Amino acid sequence: MDQKGFIRADVREKVTGEARYGDDLVFSRMLYARAVHCPHPRARILKIDGKKAMEIPGVVGIYTAGDVPGLNQGPQDKPMLASEIANSAGDGVAVVAAETQEAADRGAALVEVAYEPLPAVLDPEEALASRPPVVLYQEDGLTDNVACRHRVVKGDVEKGFREAEVILERTYRTQRIQHSAIEADTAVAVPEKDGITVYCPCKFPYHIKARVAQGCGLAQNQVRIVQPAIGGSFGGKDIDIVVIAVRAATVALRTGRPCKMTWSREECMQEGSKRHPFRLTYRVGAMRDGRITAIKIDGVADAGAYRSRSLATIWRAAVEAAGPYEIPNVETDIRAAFTNNVYSDAVRGFGSPQVDFASESLIDELARELNMDPLALRRRNIVHEGSVNATGQVLTGVSIDRCLDRLEELFPLGEPSVTPEGKLRARGIACLHRGESYGAAARDADVAGTDVRAFADGSVGIYTSISEVGQGTHTAMAKICADVLGLPLEQVRVCPVDTAFVPDSGATAGSRGTISGGNAVRIAAESLRDILRGAAEGEEDVIFQDGWLCRKDGRRLMTFREAVQICQSRGVRTDAAGQWVAPRTGWDFEKHQGKTYYSFSYGAAGAEVEIDPVTGKVEVLDLLCLHDIGKIVNYPEACGQIAGGVAMALGYTLTEELESRDGVLKNKNFDTYLLPTAMDIHRLRAIPLEETAAENPLGVHGVGEASTALVAPAVANAIARASGARLRTLPFSLERVRSALEKEER
Amino acid sequence: MDQKGFIRADVREKVTGEARYGDDLVFSRMLYARAVHCPHPRARILKIDGKKAMEIPGVVGIYTAGDVPGLNQGPQDKPMLASEIANSAGDGVAVVAAETQEAADRGAALVEVAYEPLPAVLDPEEALASRPPVVLYQEDGLTDNVACRHRVVKGDVEKGFREAEVILERTYRTQRIQHSAIEADTAVAVPEKDGITVYCPCKFPYHIKARVAQGCGLAQNQVRIVQPAIGGSFGGKDIDIVVIAVRAATVALRTGRPCKMTWSREECMQEGSKRHPFRLTYRVGAMRDGRITAIKIDGVADAGAYRSRSLATIWRAAVEAAGPYEIPNVETDIRAAFTNNVYSDAVRGFGSPQVDFASESLIDELARELNMDPLALRRRNIVHEGSVNATGQVLTGVSIDRCLDRLEELFPLGEPSVTPEGKLRARGIACLHRGESYGAAARDADVAGTDVRAFADGSVGIYTSISEVGQGTHTAMAKICADVLGLPLEQVRVCPVDTAFVPDSGATAGSRGTISGGNAVRIAAESLRDILRGAAEGEEDVIFQDGWLCRKDGRRLMTFREAVQICQSRGVRTDAAGQWVAPRTGWDFEKHQGKTYYSFSYGAAGAEVEIDPVTGKVEVLDLLCLHDIGKIVNYPEACGQIAGGVAMALGYTLTEELESRDGVLKNKNFDTYLLPTAMDIHRLRAIPLEETAAENPLGVHGVGEASTALVAPAVANAIARASGARLRTLPFSLERVRSALEKEER
Repeated sequence: MDQKGFIRADVREKVTGEARYGDDLVFSRMLYARAVHCPHPRARILKIDGKKAMEIPGVVGIYTAGDVPGLNQGPQDKPMLASEIANSAGDGVAVVAAETQEAADRGAALVEVAYEPLPAVLDPEEALASRPPVVLYQEDGLTDNVACRHRVVKGDVEKGFREAEVILERTYRTQRIQHSAIEADTAVAVPEKDGITVYCPCKFPYHIKARVAQGCGLAQNQVRIVQPAIGGSFGGKDIDIVVIAVRAATVALRTGRPCKMTWSREECMQEGSKRHPFRLTYRVGAMRDGRITAIKIDGVADAGAYRSRSLATIWRAAVEAAGPYEIPNVETDIRAAFTNNVYSDAVRGFGSPQVDFASESLIDELARELNMDPLALRRRNIVHEGSVNATGQVLTGVSIDRCLDRLEELFPLGEPSVTPEGKLRARGIACLHRGESYGAAARDADVAGTDVRAFADGSVGIYTSISEVGQGTHTAMAKICADVLGLPLEQVRVCPVDTAFVPDSGATAGSRGTISGGNAVRIAAESLRDILRGAAEGEEDVIFQDGWLCRKDGRRLMTFREAVQICQSRGVRTDAAGQWVAPRTGWDFEKHQGKTYYSFSYGAAGAEVEIDPVTGKVEVLDLLCLHDIGKIVNYPEACGQIAGGVAMALGYTLTEELESRDGVLKNKNFDTYLLPTAMDIHRLRAIPLEETAAENPLGVHGVGEASTALVAPAVANAIARASGARLRTLPFSLERVRSALEKEER
Repeated sequence: MDQKGFIRADVREKVTGEARYGDDLVFSRMLYARAVHCPHPRARILKIDGKKAMEIPGVVGIYTAGDVPGLNQGPQDKPMLASEIANSAGDGVAVVAAETQEAADRGAALVEVAYEPLPAVLDPEEALASRPPVVLYQEDGLTDNVACRHRVVKGDVEKGFREAEVILERTYRTQRIQHSAIEADTAVAVPEKDGITVYCPCKFPYHIKARVAQGCGLAQNQVRIVQPAIGGSFGGKDIDIVVIAVRAATVALRTGRPCKMTWSREECMQEGSKRHPFRLTYRVGAMRDGRITAIKIDGVADAGAYRSRSLATIWRAAVEAAGPYEIPNVETDIRAAFTNNVYSDAVRGFGSPQVDFASESLIDELARELNMDPLALRRRNIVHEGSVNATGQVLTGVSIDRCLDRLEELFPLGEPSVTPEGKLRARGIACLHRGESYGAAARDADVAGTDVRAFADGSVGIYTSISEVGQGTHTAMAKICADVLGLPLEQVRVCPVDTAFVPDSGATAGSRGTISGGNAVRIAAESLRDILRGAAEGEEDVIFQDGWLCRKDGRRLMTFREAVQICQSRGVRTDAAGQWVAPRTGWDFEKHQGKTYYSFSYGAAGAEVEIDPVTGKVEVLDLLCLHDIGKIVNYPEACGQIAGGVAMALGYTLTEELESRDGVLKNKNFDTYLLPTAMDIHRLRAIPLEETAAENPLGVHGVGEASTALVAPAVANAIARASGARLRTLPFSLERVRSALEKEER
């Protein structure tokens, strides 16, 4: 394993500040836009009066839902601008466009909107209990508040409980958090001669293209999405960007001028999508020897006012909820409720962090109940090669046993201790399985198109719509291509993502970037290699190495560049298309069983905490995260991905929480929404493993998300081991920890 | 033939002023550049002192040849900036970059360059006679002033002359003119994280990409050429753009800021490339019955100080010089000389207008000598199906006989007349053959790559680097694609030309745009159609019409859009690559014979003139231009192309001329360089014909250039018929006409 790896292509520009993000773009005659947001969690919009706003010098127009050129709102989708009803606080109701951002801001503050506030339902359980829908959409016949429901049924759970010697029931709660990308959501829409170009960060360029086309009333070949540098995605930069892009495009198409809309941080918080909060009630039955006989999971998630990616998130949660364990009887039922809260969407890990916190906390609670070592209890139940998981899928490529071996070796649990200052110390662990890519219930097939083109000087370009969101995929793809073609990495470059030109490679989601995009690059590069072999006519077994076409014995025949030129002089195109089609999956919505994901990756983590019993402050002194990713393309980046996920999860675990008062978020900015900082990280070991090659030609697993799901349960388990206090609600704020310790003391 | 046709995609933006040309682009922190030009036709650069210029507020830097990051000058090429020696007046020696255009202009005026003027050679014949090279390049071992020489030898020309009953020798001269695009040459260079993007008009995007990469010292995958709207090419927007782009890129790469360089009109005239001036001496032998037995042509062209496309231009001139006639004995020898004049490059028609003026004037002179009808003499000698032309090529698809039939029908020569005011009236005719595309002597094979992609909503995008320079090729390509896929034209769109993404389709030159690009689109669209047929599994003979996939009997199976979605849901890519490889040609540089072009197109024209014998003013009262283009894709555009060529040729014939005094052009702007205006056009009939389908799947010939070569000889012949005065030097200015009439009177 080459631990040195290589430098990411976009590092320099980001470190030096040269990277041009969406908000850095300036076009001639460009307008600036600011939205007017509804301050009520649910309200009827009676009147929008822009007179005063129009008096501000520089304000050129005020646009409302009726001005959106195409479809303002799809079924249960977030509207581009709320029309009749605003379903949640923060919903945009109007856009003010002006010659300067200042004028747009001043104008937006002066738009007078008359609302009739309506009763809001903010609690998802209450929403599920109430018949009449609490949200209103333009066209669909919603009759209750179920945004979606997914079940998993295996065996006979009641029978399993009857067999069990021990039964435990616990409820866990996770909070609403946000992506917190450094870059605020932004879009610049530029009207073109017969369409529009939108410059915006995006995790799924072709999805944004399709949605912007819909919102603008244009054909997809008239809409071009160009991706500037991205300052973080974390599962976002998708639906929020669609909304912003169509708002900017509305101004652009109505005025014929470019228009930029960049959300302020406050707007990102107020209107932007969030991670689904969950209530998860687990009932588990086990034998005294640790064998789990049954698990029953009932969950409720808060979808907020719009559906967005709730389907995918809830389904993943349901499928993964029973953990990486072989349990004969499983019944999972998770519903997402529409409420008048800000809407939920995919956030890095989407679904996994919530259920993994619950299931891995539960295992430790069961271990304690059974008086077993937590690691031993896991080992007793984990899936193995050939195991049948909760959805009836026969598993292959299972490596969780080895992840636990490595965890034990590197992070022995040891015994809890108390420091001389009276602080409580202990270690906790957690492990996980994580399904890769979209999963069987997704509308989108996992398909990635990628092209590779060789130029006359021997340099090579890669064309993909997999987004470089900071995770290093583009550099990984260049490396994969360079390896196939026997070229130095510098000779290969990934071209900017521009949907006018690059093929659809799907979303940078479900940790699929390198699996799908990388394998597609490999296919395309292999095709190109076959084409270029034609330059060495009469030679057999031509190999590509060090920039040369060589005989098998290493004798050099011609340079790569010469091969390209020979082909071109013969009229042969020196480019090739690659298409990666992921293995089939399938889900039976009646039987609640199926082949959920074409592969799972496995990981484990350990956390050592020190609790100040006086303040309730939890310091995570040591964090180890292991993730078997099959094959490591770029070691430092793999480590970086894992470490970044762990850091993000630390915020989820300890400090981050969006709280609402009467349906309006109290957190307005990062002064009240607390992200972890470098000061919160003590020792951190992010270790990618190459235990079992994944079942794709590159052998790679995704590395982007699993790490986000391991920290909360490991910390919860460490806290419990240190103090006896079991924290079942995220985050572990000072107050919660203090109060749990007090309860324990009593 | 559908004479209604359809609207060009870029018409609206151009008519409304919405089109964004290169010079309209503004980037944040963009600098503006202005060049300092050498005022001497040949000079040694002793010192460049920018001190005073740097004192101008806003000037940020002064760049000279040493600052060009890559190769400043290729063999015999124009340097990006002159270093040691300036070889012609107007050569750029330094670039001043500033925060505003005004500051750059002021700075450029203050740069002090010390020159040592060197003796200049301005006459090409003198240059050829002198051994020591009059131009100096950085590296190559030039030993004389022959820029290039091309010969054609068929039969035994001396034997032919011995057989002849009549021998005539005449010398014709053509002048230096320029492209005169409305849009001045411009480029905006934007530094990227690891390369550069240049926004510039261009007729050959991949050529500019390669040359900019070379000039910047970058790999081709680091250079992106993006084409904004173009305000005319006419064979230009190529080498001049390379020079401007590399100058702007030099500033951009040295400062890390975008840089725009737009030439003023004066700079376009002073430094920009020109049409080659020719001296052509024809000696023709014929029998009394009109049969031509031999023709000997000796020509000298002025390449100016740099080679650029002289090779292609001179070769075409040599190959076409004997006209569309079957002559048993031919000897053509044309040389281009290096001089210290402004350099020559391709201008619409490149090579044809010069030799066609001479050869078609000569035929009329011979007809007069033989006392034959000019049309009859042509008919006596024209090539027919299976004829062997001057280069030994057996011709197929010949339609000049029918062009002459149509000409006679629509434009009977009639008799000269005198108006009551004493003005002289008569008609004259001319005809031509014109080789299509690059020709056998070109370095570049005629290959065009084009991709076609269908989107999920059924809209289609075309990817090509054939430039839309105002000729309507993109709309023609969309139509060809729409026809293959059975879609309405609106559903198909050609994506912007951006070399980061589109395949190399070669140059928009040699009238090949629709032949090569169009056939490539057809191939790609047919492949896409085959892919989409897969959506209708089990159906045979599926046809595509009206946006549907249908059974042979017309029964609709599914919409085009549904077919796309079905394929995509199966993981099948809905795009296809097309590659058009033109039929082979070949040139024997020893025997001066070969298959020169894969096809020729044919045309004929008639001009009716009215000469004011007092002023010498020639009014062209009626102009008819016929061009057999095999298959007409869009009738109004084909007419527009022909009419535009005729109008351009009218300026060449009557008014346009760049004159130099001591090697410096006297014409500084359009006040002294006279373009024809609408007032100069009386009756104009531009008629595309569909006589013989061309030998390519679409059956199309090029339509862009032939019309530029027919006007001058037709007008010359009409003047001669009206007045007896034979004008052998272009243009037919008042002075020349008056003086020729006086000579005739004497």
